[in-house]
Amino acid sequence: EKKGLVVTSANNDFSMNIGGRIHADSTTHLNDDLQKRSSGDPAEAVSGTELRRARLALRGSFNRDFSYNIEADWGGNSVSLKDVLVTYQASPQLEITVGNQKHSVSMEVEESSNDIMFNERSLLSALTLPHFDRAMGLNIKTMGDNWSLKGGIYGDAVSSSGDGADEGGGFGVRGSFAPINESGKLIHLGASYGLRKANDNNSLSNGKTPRLRYETTNMSDLYLSDTGSIAGFEEIQLTGLEFAAMRGRFSAQAELGQASIKRDGGSDLSFNAHYLQLGWTLTGEARNYRGSDGEFKMLKPRNDFDLAQNHWGAWELALRLDELDLHDGDIDGGSQQRFSLNLNWYLNANLRILFGYSRAYDVESGPVIQQGGGEADNVDIFSLRTQLAL
Amino acid sequence: EKKGLVVTSANNDFSMNIGGRIHADSTTHLNDDLQKRSSGDPAEAVSGTELRRARLALRGSFNRDFSYNIEADWGGNSVSLKDVLVTYQASPQLEITVGNQKHSVSMEVEESSNDIMFNERSLLSALTLPHFDRAMGLNIKTMGDNWSLKGGIYGDAVSSSGDGADEGGGFGVRGSFAPINESGKLIHLGASYGLRKANDNNSLSNGKTPRLRYETTNMSDLYLSDTGSIAGFEEIQLTGLEFAAMRGRFSAQAELGQASIKRDGGSDLSFNAHYLQLGWTLTGEARNYRGSDGEFKMLKPRNDFDLAQNHWGAWELALRLDELDLHDGDIDGGSQQRFSLNLNWYLNANLRILFGYSRAYDVESGPVIQQGGGEADNVDIFSLRTQLAL
Amino acid sequence: EKKGLVVTSANNDFSMNIGGRIHADSTTHLNDDLQKRSSGDPAEAVSGTELRRARLALRGSFNRDFSYNIEADWGGNSVSLKDVLVTYQASPQLEITVGNQKHSVSMEVEESSNDIMFNERSLLSALTLPHFDRAMGLNIKTMGDNWSLKGGIYGDAVSSSGDGADEGGGFGVRGSFAPINESGKLIHLGASYGLRKANDNNSLSNGKTPRLRYETTNMSDLYLSDTGSIAGFEEIQLTGLEFAAMRGRFSAQAELGQASIKRDGGSDLSFNAHYLQLGWTLTGEARNYRGSDGEFKMLKPRNDFDLAQNHWGAWELALRLDELDLHDGDIDGGSQQRFSLNLNWYLNANLRILFGYSRAYDVESGPVIQQGGGEADNVDIFSLRTQLAL
Repeated sequence: EKKGLVVTSANNDFSMNIGGRIHADSTTHLNDDLQKRSSGDPAEAVSGTELRRARLALRGSFNRDFSYNIEADWGGNSVSLKDVLVTYQASPQLEITVGNQKHSVSMEVEESSNDIMFNERSLLSALTLPHFDRAMGLNIKTMGDNWSLKGGIYGDAVSSSGDGADEGGGFGVRGSFAPINESGKLIHLGASYGLRKANDNNSLSNGKTPRLRYETTNMSDLYLSDTGSIAGFEEIQLTGLEFAAMRGRFSAQAELGQASIKRDGGSDLSFNAHYLQLGWTLTGEARNYRGSDGEFKMLKPRNDFDLAQNHWGAWELALRLDELDLHDGDIDGGSQQRFSLNLNWYLNANLRILFGYSRAYDVESGPVIQQGGGEADNVDIFSLRTQLAL
Repeated sequence: EKKGLVVTSANNDFSMNIGGRIHADSTTHLNDDLQKRSSGDPAEAVSGTELRRARLALRGSFNRDFSYNIEADWGGNSVSLKDVLVTYQASPQLEITVGNQKHSVSMEVEESSNDIMFNERSLLSALTLPHFDRAMGLNIKTMGDNWSLKGGIYGDAVSSSGDGADEGGGFGVRGSFAPINESGKLIHLGASYGLRKANDNNSLSNGKTPRLRYETTNMSDLYLSDTGSIAGFEEIQLTGLEFAAMRGRFSAQAELGQASIKRDGGSDLSFNAHYLQLGWTLTGEARNYRGSDGEFKMLKPRNDFDLAQNHWGAWELALRLDELDLHDGDIDGGSQQRFSLNLNWYLNANLRILFGYSRAYDVESGPVIQQGGGEADNVDIFSLRTQLAL
Repeated sequence: EKKGLVVTSANNDFSMNIGGRIHADSTTHLNDDLQKRSSGDPAEAVSGTELRRARLALRGSFNRDFSYNIEADWGGNSVSLKDVLVTYQASPQLEITVGNQKHSVSMEVEESSNDIMFNERSLLSALTLPHFDRAMGLNIKTMGDNWSLKGGIYGDAVSSSGDGADEGGGFGVRGSFAPINESGKLIHLGASYGLRKANDNNSLSNGKTPRLRYETTNMSDLYLSDTGSIAGFEEIQLTGLEFAAMRGRFSAQAELGQASIKRDGGSDLSFNAHYLQLGWTLTGEARNYRGSDGEFKMLKPRNDFDLAQNHWGAWELALRLDELDLHDGDIDGGSQQRFSLNLNWYLNANLRILFGYSRAYDVESGPVIQQGGGEADNVDIFSLRTQLAL
């Protein structure tokens, strides 16, 4: 557990933990002298600094079986409510949660941004995040030490769509099973399926434009692949398969995803993405896996950083290969592959620093091209993050 | 008292309570195939989900006689500062409060959204809330066990009006008296008067357009009655009378309100609204009334929900009849009646679930009509709320 | 120290303090019947009420050598992240801080708005605040009991500039030395230098338009001096000198500042400002100076306000004279002098009330003139603030 304070009432009947999160980023691009394919206008990536996440959270429990979480993010000076929910623990194996929460899809989405080994999620998130991130819903979860099954129905985002029509909705279900789950030894298998219908105007799904794309960093405003807004967007289905394994200091994780889109007045569309990532803790620690959630949690250093004792925390090397294909039928959002290498320094249970490098390659048919002409290939991205998690 | 934590300094000289609030809503309309009267454009209600309220609050006391409250709401991903104030308790019967706070008008407005028996306030709130909700001001309160007298002067909203002219201001005063106020026995009488002047451009009062209207739900964008922006709006006066009674598990509450508007270059306008509501606690608890505030507080279940002990919390049935008339002189904002029935489940002191049904009927002259023609009558509204109060 | 709560873990290894801030303002102008010099449109000051600041903060320490601060402001119902940072105390004399933080320039900017003797900062802040307020950066500080040296490199603001070009950056360094620093006796000398480059479009620096101006109050929308947006803005340098002294109940503080601007396709520009302020604690307390920061902290009353004991807290009189000259080369942003008188009432360590009066005089060549013609001279500003600091 990361360090923090839990204040508890005298009779143990009420508890509160006040949490916070800082993700302070600095990013740079190389080889990004690009222009828009359509207009020829310059389309350089915006590099610089950003508070990617700045959050406060109130979490705790009451009346023994109930717990709550109110978490808001003000990164970039805009409000974004995160987990805002109440959970009822009906039995040790059954939880019911109401409120704003993540859809039950994709291991990578379920894992916290505090805990993943990279600065940003993979190209697969171009399919998962736009429509299957958090929504208002009702979720039921049943779990054991090495398995979980979670499913729920969801309305739309936390605000009114304001689009002059009824909002859409959907559901998501995810199961995970770890036939091997011992300290430092793991085989994880998982699968998920989600479906969302757009609103009655076919113009919004979970508060977002019906569009799939991937930004090189959260602040770059550069999308090397982008379907644009898909007219007549009726429904999106998401299917995913997960695999993970761990042996001591080494871990592997992979996901395959497919998004299928039904359109009003157009053929169905199908887009694909996947990633494979490998982790190697240079200082020897094994990563933490929680079987009842089917996800990895943040690595804890064996020895916290302390100059006086010549302790240097934990160091981790992570490699990721991912691919995204947004071309199908009359929609050509392009395709790309990406290679990411991260060196992560865990100073202690609350603080880590991420040095990330990525290269986007085999970029084809995207919305931008090089200024001299030619595909926007081999764009390099450097990202430095200081992360505090309370 | 609802459960929460109060942390107190060693010498009892400083205390802090960290609070929170979640109102997670799902709403549906029937019979809302409407169009705008003026343009014929479709005007269906937006149904779906919304985080109606998501709040954090810091409350406490210092230097024995002083207390504070800083509460902000991020519901719908926008910032709305609520109580942001400092109170000086000059004597047991005298309080002075500076900061952003509610005007002293209308029992229903004074009561917390956590405590009222319905998902949204009545049609009377079309007169009270737009101009007499919270504002920056100075309030003085004197009170006893069964009476209260509170009045204050108020400037405008928490932000600069930015309208190129000095902001407006006003005052509000409310008195309440409970000739009978024993456990489960109550007669409450109250009256209030408020006045606000618009800003120097006659275009804003308390940060709002000079307009009276009522939205079917907080997210529907459907207004069955609406004056539109009233040109030359100079001043609004609000007069209200209150009556409430309780006998054991039964309670009644009613308010009459009149809003009078002075215009620059137009005759005075007068609009009316009232409501009558009845409460019946099926599980037998009496509601809580606080005489020194002249308002009802949240019901507390005798037995908290606990399956193991076969306890089901408290259940409450509430009925409300209300009416709004926004027609006077050359302004025809229409009129409507509304019928609301709520079944409320209080699981414990922190959690309740509201099942609300309303029907708007006798709707006349409003800004929308049925798609086939004819008044927008008999619109049905279903609202489900999960409420956490810390 | 102001009163608040610090909650500490059992082993003293983690601490948290939850803070808050309220600045509730009411402002009035006299002699502000003005019009725009260019168009003749009315340009009256907006007077009224505002929540100038409403903040929550989470502060504390972990792992002995690390500390954190997450502070956000929602004053005026908009989000503004303030200190969002992590500090590593490498040794008693060396601190390294990463995150969103103030540039190291100008004593007046370094001092908290809770602690300064006036409602708003001086005319010098027209040069310092726009580009040298908080930014994302890395700061290194070394200090002793009566000296400090702090310098850092900074990227841009907390959000992406979104301007289609790489963000700018800069650095700031400030040193302070107090040859005399005893209780109630002080000589302080300081100097600072800062430089920022605008973004690659020459249109934004630290998230702001390249423009220097001064608003009469934070809500008035009235600028008596204003350069307008400076085309081709490449770089701004800021040089400042500081002097302060204290003898018992009397204190003096002065700063001189010069901003030099390089332009792409235009001659260099140079603007100047300075202030001199005097403080006199009527109730005899000396102000608090912290040598390791080179700044004044909030005055603490010897006896807290308590009617029963006939204690009235501390009362302070403060006078400020300042001047701003925004005329150079082809840019004529005008010039002005200002005279400010504040009477400040410190009720206790958490609460103070500020009565402020200012007159802007010798106003020349600014963007507004009197309605009858003639310079916008002798504008009077009255400001009342209630301040809570937790």
